Amino acid sequence: MTHESKPTIAILGGTGKEGPGLAMRWALAGYPIIIGSRQAEKAEATAAELRAKLNVEHIRGMENGAAARAATFCVLTVVHTAHQAALETLKDALQGKILIDATARVDFREPRPPSPPSAARMAQDLLGKGVRVVAAFQNVPAHALKKNLGQPMDTDVLVCADDLPAAEEVIRLAQAAGMRAYYAGNLDNAVVVEGLTSLLISLNQYYGVKTASIAITGLDR
Amino acid sequence: MTHESKPTIAILGGTGKEGPGLAMRWALAGYPIIIGSRQAEKAEATAAELRAKLNVEHIRGMENGAAARAATFCVLTVVHTAHQAALETLKDALQGKILIDATARVDFREPRPPSPPSAARMAQDLLGKGVRVVAAFQNVPAHALKKNLGQPMDTDVLVCADDLPAAEEVIRLAQAAGMRAYYAGNLDNAVVVEGLTSLLISLNQYYGVKTASIAITGLDR
Repeated sequence: MTHESKPTIAILGGTGKEGPGLAMRWALAGYPIIIGSRQAEKAEATAAELRAKLNVEHIRGMENGAAARAATFCVLTVVHTAHQAALETLKDALQGKILIDATARVDFREPRPPSPPSAARMAQDLLGKGVRVVAAFQNVPAHALKKNLGQPMDTDVLVCADDLPAAEEVIRLAQAAGMRAYYAGNLDNAVVVEGLTSLLISLNQYYGVKTASIAITGLDR
Repeated sequence: MTHESKPTIAILGGTGKEGPGLAMRWALAGYPIIIGSRQAEKAEATAAELRAKLNVEHIRGMENGAAARAATFCVLTVVHTAHQAALETLKDALQGKILIDATARVDFREPRPPSPPSAARMAQDLLGKGVRVVAAFQNVPAHALKKNLGQPMDTDVLVCADDLPAAEEVIRLAQAAGMRAYYAGNLDNAVVVEGLTSLLISLNQYYGVKTASIAITGLDR
């Protein structure tokens, strides 16, 4: 399958730590990628970097709204403090899309688990029924995404959504990027996944690593 | 090392689903075990069952308070609705002990992630500084504990505590029972582990299993 026949993925807020890693993995799997940013120039600069790094053409940069409108899947990778403002700005552009909310909710200076509702539930409430919100990728270490590109990753993605078919599409996207992925219940459950970041920071500190993550066990019947 | 030289472990509320599995694994590892219950007779009945099942002598049954006083490590395995009352009743008996709080916080009829503070933080606040509270074992499936006794389990225990030496003692206890265990930060972080139960229920339902659990990855330097 060539990338012309695959759906386009926009990475909104895609110039940060998490976005480029996801972008590269999907680009290598043949998906056309749009890096989104509040500033089109910044998006295009990151896109040019990734094109050069992978020696491919199918990564573009655009302003977030234009990126969202041009894509089938939109992945939001902004920091939690920018989350609500980004959703309000992008509400119209996101109608009809599947929004994959990867917002980690943690203050890195003082990591503490968040309270309900989940960021993803808040996103769904704010965006309305015209957008299918799926929470995923919050706890995939940025370091691990960029290491061993094209190889499977030793991390599992917990996918939470109210809309099961949308969750299943995101599970396939995660697999295309080299991750195992599992359906883990509705958007309320996403608050636990958002809270894992706080635990993973503690694990990284105590064990002196940067790539602590989790895997699901016990699914063999 | 014989079990006479190992510290005694009391399982408070140990006649439920989770307690007997932990009791059997530690008994097999040579630890003297006391099953605790609000009724001494009920505790002794469960202890007799486990003694017969394992063909060992070093499992006794006692009323919860007496069990706590006679032990070095106390493991609380009550349901969340009984958690506060149990702590209030046992506050005096627990002074000087390490309390391992395994309380899962979920309404099984309507699973939803909990809000902070964690049950373990609440326990520490209620019990005071005379008790070292360690949160652990909340998300170890009761089914998995009872299967393949004496064999390693494919599940990881996330251990949260404010007191690091106490956490390290509990990590060793988990290892003695065949589980990998990792220090995952302070008692506030335990709310995430308590919330995992809600996700594991969703995973069990969707994948048609009873033993979904998690493992930590990415700790190799």
